[in-house]
Amino acid sequence: MMRVRVAILGATGLVGRAMLAVLEQRGFPVERPRLLASERSASRTLRFRGAELAVEPVAADAFRDIDVALFASANPVSLEWAPRARAAGAKVIDNSSAFRYDPAVPLVVPEVNGDLLQAQPGLIANPNCSTIAIVLPLAALAPAARLERLVVATYQAVSGAGSDALDDLERGIREGLDGPPPPRAGGLAPFAWNVVPHIDRFEDNGYTREEMKIVWESRKILGLDRLPVTATAVRVPVRVGHGAAVMASFDRPIEPERARELWRAFPGLEVVDDPGTNAYPTPLRAAGNDPVLVGRARRDLSDPNGLVFFVASDNLRKGAALNAVQIAERLCAVDAAA
Amino acid sequence: MMRVRVAILGATGLVGRAMLAVLEQRGFPVERPRLLASERSASRTLRFRGAELAVEPVAADAFRDIDVALFASANPVSLEWAPRARAAGAKVIDNSSAFRYDPAVPLVVPEVNGDLLQAQPGLIANPNCSTIAIVLPLAALAPAARLERLVVATYQAVSGAGSDALDDLERGIREGLDGPPPPRAGGLAPFAWNVVPHIDRFEDNGYTREEMKIVWESRKILGLDRLPVTATAVRVPVRVGHGAAVMASFDRPIEPERARELWRAFPGLEVVDDPGTNAYPTPLRAAGNDPVLVGRARRDLSDPNGLVFFVASDNLRKGAALNAVQIAERLCAVDAAA
Repeated sequence: MMRVRVAILGATGLVGRAMLAVLEQRGFPVERPRLLASERSASRTLRFRGAELAVEPVAADAFRDIDVALFASANPVSLEWAPRARAAGAKVIDNSSAFRYDPAVPLVVPEVNGDLLQAQPGLIANPNCSTIAIVLPLAALAPAARLERLVVATYQAVSGAGSDALDDLERGIREGLDGPPPPRAGGLAPFAWNVVPHIDRFEDNGYTREEMKIVWESRKILGLDRLPVTATAVRVPVRVGHGAAVMASFDRPIEPERARELWRAFPGLEVVDDPGTNAYPTPLRAAGNDPVLVGRARRDLSDPNGLVFFVASDNLRKGAALNAVQIAERLCAVDAAA
Repeated sequence: MMRVRVAILGATGLVGRAMLAVLEQRGFPVERPRLLASERSASRTLRFRGAELAVEPVAADAFRDIDVALFASANPVSLEWAPRARAAGAKVIDNSSAFRYDPAVPLVVPEVNGDLLQAQPGLIANPNCSTIAIVLPLAALAPAARLERLVVATYQAVSGAGSDALDDLERGIREGLDGPPPPRAGGLAPFAWNVVPHIDRFEDNGYTREEMKIVWESRKILGLDRLPVTATAVRVPVRVGHGAAVMASFDRPIEPERARELWRAFPGLEVVDDPGTNAYPTPLRAAGNDPVLVGRARRDLSDPNGLVFFVASDNLRKGAALNAVQIAERLCAVDAAA
């Protein structure tokens, strides 16, 4: 099999490090990924297959001879470096939201709309972490009924806000053992011992940007441009693993047992749904694992055509790094090891 | 003002102790509440207005000369002792779910349907903690539009599961600082560092009993017997303070600003809803305070007649003890101090 020359931009962050780990775990045919970061984060090393790889500051020639660049960077960095990486001949898989809403840029969950990769696009957007976990079970139900409305409430881990937020959570939890947890920087409500219905900035319509990502991206990935969607995105004091309560309406009823059948047959999903043995998805059970867990399937008591369920997934893996590497595998026709 | 002779059954539990604190804080006209508990929990004392009151084991003559008995007990205990307390002449305000679904028993949130107390019922059921916080803002909107559908996802504090669960959370959080949090008794998923979509036992329809309480009780309190409702009830690693994402559909649109106006004018609610200053309800902000916090009001993007909002409230106070004492105040025509 051909070797793929891979770069990771933002290699030292939580998602960047998860990308490196996923490349190793899946036996991705890369020799030495080029690890790139801002000046601030460079000059450290990261372990890959037993070797210490130096992290280099991203610079003009950083993407020379690179086939696939995995971007685990914030929007401004992606906006600056994606055009340069593409000019250097690299295909870019970008985990930021900078390009997700550009109609020319495919937004891909391989199990759902991986066919978009056959056109060999030069820039692919990796979707929002919660959205990935929500669209997988919905796409699996497409053979049974047409989705007509989507209502979501999330339970999102603090690692989704980055490593500084995670450090802050640990501090807040410790301080909160014997007193009130301190506010976060800027006087924001603590994540520790709390739940906070505020992720990313507020939009003019009263939704947060995170909530609108779920609206826009579920439509785009599922190819349902006018799908009515509403979402409430909430941070919970969990390290890794996003949960979501999903209320989905269809053009006809779907029995929970039929839903579970379709989910079991769909790649990327693991059905954890047995009330008798207290089996259901939780973030702790999802963390560190590849599949999106889906369960708690039941009829929507408020809608004869509605199905209610709960998902949990590792927001750093399927929600970010794993999905990006899976895109790279498809793009490079690599046989996935996992 | 007449003195009221009050007993608290289950006085040593989290809700029982909160009832005692609320009686004191509101200057309820009681001299020495009679504190009752099972044999196991009796023989300790609790502080009330500077005095140490002995906790007595509940027994045949426990409710003699009592005007109002506040029950902070589990269903079997309430089922056993409510008839005896009534036979002794006491009015019973019961926080268990044992009598809530009996059509003959009023289920009361005083700000919403407190008029039911004018008939001086002998047994009043105190509603489920999450339901109380959800029906208050919905009742406030009744002048603007008729509620036609209710979709809820909760974020419920561990104190709702009692003091043993709370101790277990503290242990799990500590152990989880440096390793995986241990499972709970019976191999159940830990509450610590996790979210768990399982509260109370599972029903045959795939819903948990906690979720069905929200369905049944919101209908009964709001007087909308056939209101379509669905709920997902989730435990989060928070000590005190339940949150809920609420998606409500009406027979006509309600503008968020109109909703906030109605909420501001409604007793028991505090509007915390200013994205510009990052003001929104959180459990930590609600804990220890009386009002149900409501905010994040916005139009439901999936429903032209829908309104989405977020509530947070102290599950031990307005969710249990405070609501029970408010019922007692109305029943005894006591002027509330608070």
